Amino acid sequence: MTVTLQDFLTRLDREIRAEADWGEVARYIPELAGIAPDQFGIAVATADGGMAMAGDAEKGFSIQSISKVFTLASVLGRIGEQIWTRVGREPSGSRFDSIWQLETEDRPRNPFINAGALVVTDELLTGRSPQDALAEILGFVHTAAGDDDIHIDREVAQSEAATGHRNIALAHYLMSCGNLHNAPELVLGTYFHQCAIEMSCVQLALAGRAIAGLPGAPLVLSRARARRLNALMMLCGHYDGSGDFAFRVGLPGKSGVGGGILLIAPGRASIGIWSPGLNVFGNSHMGTRAAEALTRETGWSVFG
Amino acid sequence: MTVTLQDFLTRLDREIRAEADWGEVARYIPELAGIAPDQFGIAVATADGGMAMAGDAEKGFSIQSISKVFTLASVLGRIGEQIWTRVGREPSGSRFDSIWQLETEDRPRNPFINAGALVVTDELLTGRSPQDALAEILGFVHTAAGDDDIHIDREVAQSEAATGHRNIALAHYLMSCGNLHNAPELVLGTYFHQCAIEMSCVQLALAGRAIAGLPGAPLVLSRARARRLNALMMLCGHYDGSGDFAFRVGLPGKSGVGGGILLIAPGRASIGIWSPGLNVFGNSHMGTRAAEALTRETGWSVFG
Amino acid sequence: MTVTLQDFLTRLDREIRAEADWGEVARYIPELAGIAPDQFGIAVATADGGMAMAGDAEKGFSIQSISKVFTLASVLGRIGEQIWTRVGREPSGSRFDSIWQLETEDRPRNPFINAGALVVTDELLTGRSPQDALAEILGFVHTAAGDDDIHIDREVAQSEAATGHRNIALAHYLMSCGNLHNAPELVLGTYFHQCAIEMSCVQLALAGRAIAGLPGAPLVLSRARARRLNALMMLCGHYDGSGDFAFRVGLPGKSGVGGGILLIAPGRASIGIWSPGLNVFGNSHMGTRAAEALTRETGWSVFG
Amino acid sequence: MTVTLQDFLTRLDREIRAEADWGEVARYIPELAGIAPDQFGIAVATADGGMAMAGDAEKGFSIQSISKVFTLASVLGRIGEQIWTRVGREPSGSRFDSIWQLETEDRPRNPFINAGALVVTDELLTGRSPQDALAEILGFVHTAAGDDDIHIDREVAQSEAATGHRNIALAHYLMSCGNLHNAPELVLGTYFHQCAIEMSCVQLALAGRAIAGLPGAPLVLSRARARRLNALMMLCGHYDGSGDFAFRVGLPGKSGVGGGILLIAPGRASIGIWSPGLNVFGNSHMGTRAAEALTRETGWSVFG
Repeated sequence: MTVTLQDFLTRLDREIRAEADWGEVARYIPELAGIAPDQFGIAVATADGGMAMAGDAEKGFSIQSISKVFTLASVLGRIGEQIWTRVGREPSGSRFDSIWQLETEDRPRNPFINAGALVVTDELLTGRSPQDALAEILGFVHTAAGDDDIHIDREVAQSEAATGHRNIALAHYLMSCGNLHNAPELVLGTYFHQCAIEMSCVQLALAGRAIAGLPGAPLVLSRARARRLNALMMLCGHYDGSGDFAFRVGLPGKSGVGGGILLIAPGRASIGIWSPGLNVFGNSHMGTRAAEALTRETGWSVFG
Repeated sequence: MTVTLQDFLTRLDREIRAEADWGEVARYIPELAGIAPDQFGIAVATADGGMAMAGDAEKGFSIQSISKVFTLASVLGRIGEQIWTRVGREPSGSRFDSIWQLETEDRPRNPFINAGALVVTDELLTGRSPQDALAEILGFVHTAAGDDDIHIDREVAQSEAATGHRNIALAHYLMSCGNLHNAPELVLGTYFHQCAIEMSCVQLALAGRAIAGLPGAPLVLSRARARRLNALMMLCGHYDGSGDFAFRVGLPGKSGVGGGILLIAPGRASIGIWSPGLNVFGNSHMGTRAAEALTRETGWSVFG
Repeated sequence: MTVTLQDFLTRLDREIRAEADWGEVARYIPELAGIAPDQFGIAVATADGGMAMAGDAEKGFSIQSISKVFTLASVLGRIGEQIWTRVGREPSGSRFDSIWQLETEDRPRNPFINAGALVVTDELLTGRSPQDALAEILGFVHTAAGDDDIHIDREVAQSEAATGHRNIALAHYLMSCGNLHNAPELVLGTYFHQCAIEMSCVQLALAGRAIAGLPGAPLVLSRARARRLNALMMLCGHYDGSGDFAFRVGLPGKSGVGGGILLIAPGRASIGIWSPGLNVFGNSHMGTRAAEALTRETGWSVFG
Repeated sequence: MTVTLQDFLTRLDREIRAEADWGEVARYIPELAGIAPDQFGIAVATADGGMAMAGDAEKGFSIQSISKVFTLASVLGRIGEQIWTRVGREPSGSRFDSIWQLETEDRPRNPFINAGALVVTDELLTGRSPQDALAEILGFVHTAAGDDDIHIDREVAQSEAATGHRNIALAHYLMSCGNLHNAPELVLGTYFHQCAIEMSCVQLALAGRAIAGLPGAPLVLSRARARRLNALMMLCGHYDGSGDFAFRVGLPGKSGVGGGILLIAPGRASIGIWSPGLNVFGNSHMGTRAAEALTRETGWSVFG
C-alpha cells in the first residue's frame, strides 16, 4: 500500500460514516434490537506486532456466532479431529438457523451453523458443568487475546434464552436424533452464554492472532489446526453468504449477528470489525464492505 | 521444501503407485467407463517459469467439468459480471448434477454445478453458433496453455450426448424456468463438447498459469478476475466435497469426472493432476490425496 | 333433492355464468392459452342410465391429465398391480410437475403427478409402438364411453411437444434413474398425444360409468379395480389441492389443465365438468365450485 | 355379508391370532415400549345401535394421535373454520413428526401431523388453562362415547414429556415462526396429556358414532363438520401411509402410535381397532389388515 495502514483505516472510517444504508439490526434478540445500526469500528493486528484501528474499535459488542470459532478451537484442543464424526465440514447451502437438513442427514453440515455449533458445545460439556465449559471457552479467549477482562454479558444471554426458540428447537431435534449427549437445557444455557461474550474490535483482532499464525501470538493452537480453522471459516463462516464473502473479500472470516466479523489474513494480520446493521444473510452489512475495501487496498486476498 | 519439487513429485508418484485403493471410474459416460483407475500424473508450473512433472503427466484425458472454469472465464471476458444475474456464487450443498434447487430458486447456485454450467454455456451461445462458441472456448484454452494442439475428443462428446439424461433433464428444466435462451439441444451439444476437451496434466498446468497469476502467463484474464475465479473454485470447485477439499488441501481447485484436477496456488504455481478413480463426491480419489501431499510438503495452503 | 337433477344443473349453469372470477387459462400450452376462461359445461350420467346436462356439455375440450386415469386403467388391465413397483400410491405434497422428489426417492409418488404418469405410459409402451399404445388408450376410452368418435387433437399434442420442457426434463430424469425403459422421446410423444384427447362433458361422464360402478356400464374394469382408482383419485387426483377438493367436494375426481374434471360418485353417478379457467393448484376454478355445489345439493359426498 | 358381523369379527380375531408378523411396538415412548405387540381387539358400532366385538375389545390402550380428531372437533366447535388460517388441509407427503416443511411454508400442512396438532391444541389453550383445555377434550370424548370413565394415563403423559424431544422441537420451531400463541411448555404439556387418553376399542367405536353420522349418536358435531373430519381423516389420517390405507381399506381413519385406529364407515358404522405392533409408517400393522378384511367382507368402502 502507498499509505500506511493506519491512514487507510482512518479514511475508511470517514468514508463509511458518510454512507446512508447501514442495514438492519437483528430483531430476534431483544437485548440487541435496541442498538443503533450506524456504528463502525475496525482493528488490525499485524505480523510486526502492531495494531492499527479506527472508529469504535474499543467499544464492546456481543460476539455471538464468532464464539463458535473459539469453542471449536477449544474442543479440537481437547478431543482432536474426532469431533468430525458428529459434525461435517461442508457449506450447508442454507440459513444459519436451518433445521431441515437434520431430517435427512446424520449430522449438521458444519460447526458454524447453529445446529453444528450446538453439537460442538455439547461435546465440550462432556464430563464437565456448564460453568466449567464456559470457563474453558473464556480461558481460551483470555489467553488468545492476552486480556482477562473479556467477559460474558449475562443480560444478553438471558435475553436470548427467553426468546431463542429456533435454537431450542434445534437442540431438542438433535437430542431426538441422538446427536446431543447432555440435557438440551444445559447445552442451550452454555451456548447462549458463549454467544454473549462481549469483546471489542481490538480484543477480537488480538484473539485472532494465533489463527492468523502471526509471529509472537499466544500458543493456543497449532499451525495445522489454525490452517483448518481458516478453511472452515472461508467455506462456512458466513452461512449461505459465504460464497459472496469469499468472492468479494477473499479472506477467511466469521461473522456474528451482533455485527462483528473476525477476519484472518493468514501470516499477515488478524482483523476485528464491527458494525451492527446486517445484510440479508445476517452478516454485518458495513463490516463486509469494510473487509472488501481492506483487502482491495492491501492485496491480502488469499486468491492472488 | 528441503528437496526439489521435481524430486518430491517423483517420490509422490512412486508412493501413490504403491497404493491399493484407487477409487472407481465414473460409469455413466460409456467412453470413460473403460479407463483403468490406477493411473496417475502430475505437473506443476511454477512462478519461475519452470515445470516439474511425474507419472502420466503428458497423457491426455477428458477434462470434463474442469472446462467449466475456461467457459466461465470466456463469458466473463465477454459480458463481465452481469452473468451473476443468471447464476449464483454460493456452494449448493448438493451433488454436481442436482436438480431440486431449481424448483424453488430462481437461478443455479453456482457456475460449477452442472445446472449453472449449462447457463454459462447458454450465455456464450448468445449470438453465435455452437461451432463458434466451442472455437471461443478452445481459443481461450489454446492461448492460456500456449498450445494449439489441444482438441475435443468427439467420441467422448457423442458418448455423453447419447447417455447424459441427467444433463438433458437439467437443460430442459432450466428452459422451462426461462433461464435458458437457446434451444436445449444446442446448449447440450456445446456443453458435451466442451467437457470432452482432452488435455494432459502439463497442458492443464500451463492453462492455469493466468488464473494463478504467475509472472509471464498469457494475458487471458485480469488479476481481479483470476482472484474471483479462485474464490469460486475454493468454495464450489469440488461440489459437495468442497469443504473437505479446502480442509485437507487448502487451495482452490476444480475437478472433473474424468479424474482431472486443476489446482491453483495463487502467485506460486498452477498444477494439473490426473487419476481417473473417483471418491464418493465424484472427485479424483488419488488426485485429491496427491494435492494434499503437495500442499503439506510445499506449505502452499492459502490458509497459513 | 327436492328438484330434479336436470333442473338443478340448469340453475347451476345460470348461477355460474353470473360469476365474475373464472380463474386463468393455463399459459404454458400455446394451443390452450387462447381459450376463453368463461365457459362452463356439466354432464351427469346416473345409475338409472339417465344423463342430465347443462351449459357447454357437448363441446369438446382437451382432457389433458384426466387421460392419466384411462392410461392407468389400461395398464392395470394389462399387467395388474405390479405397476406399483415403479410408481407409488401416496399424495406427493407437491405440484403436478414437481421433480425434486425424484432426487431422493426411487419412484414417483403416484400415477397422477406428471412423473408418475410418464412411468405408466412407459409401461404401456413395453413391447408396442407409440401408435399401438395410443390405440389401446383410445380403445379403452371408446369402449368405456361407448363412442368411437373420441379422437386426439394432434395440434394440441404438437403444441405441447414443442413447449413441454418440464415434462421433457421429467422423462430424461426418470431415464437417468433407470425408471424409464423406452426412449424418452417415444414416451413423451405418446404422453403428449394421450393428453391431447378431446372429449366433451357428456363423453367424459359416459367414460366414467365403469369407474363409478354404475349398472349397465361397459365392462372395462373390475369393481375392485374401480374402487382402487377412486381411492387414488380421491387422494391424488387434484395434486397438492387434493385435500382441499376432498374437504369441499367429498368425491374422487381427476382434473386436467384444460379445465376438465372427471368426478365419480361411486354407485350413483359419473360426472364430466369443464371450465377452462384454473385456480392456483392448476385445477378448474369454476369446475371445482360446480362440483362442490353438486354434492351439497345431492348429498353424494362419500363422507356422509 | 352372508355371515353376521359378530361371526365375522370372531373369525377375524382367530385368523389374526394365527399370524406370525405383528410389526413392532413404538420404542420412543418408554411407557409404550414394554407392551406386547401380539394383541388385537376390534369393536363395531353399527347404524342400528348394535355393537359387535372380538378379541381385546374392552382393554384400554393409549389412543395417542387419535386424540387429534377429538381436539380438532372441539376447536371446530369453538372457533369454527377459522382454524384453517393456522393449519392446512393437505396431505404432507412426509412423516408424522416431520419438521422440514415448517422452514418454507407458513403453516403445518394438516391438523393430523404433529406440527399441525400442536397448533390445534394451542388454539384450544386460548383464554384457558391446560387443565381446562384437557377438561374440554375429555368432555367431548365423554359425551361422544357416552362414558365418563374415560381418563388420562398420567404416567404415559409424563413418560412422553420426558422423552418427546421431536415434539418439543416442533413446538419451539412453531413458536419461532409465530404460529404458537401460548408458551411451548403449556402446549406440550396439554398435548402429551391428550395423547395419553386411555380408551378401549368399544369406547373408541362409541366415540366415533357422531363422526360416522349414525342415528342416535350424541350431538357433538354437525353433519357437515363430520363430513369434513372424514375427508381429513381419509386424506391425512395415516400420515405418509394415507394413500396406501385408502387404497387398501377405502374408509376414513385415524391411527395412533399406541396401535389404535378409529375407522369410520359414514352412515354405516364406527369402528375401534387396536393392535400395538406398527408398520413402517407408524400405523398399526395388524389393525390395518383387520380394517382391510372388514371392508372387503362388508363392502363398506366409500369407493364403491
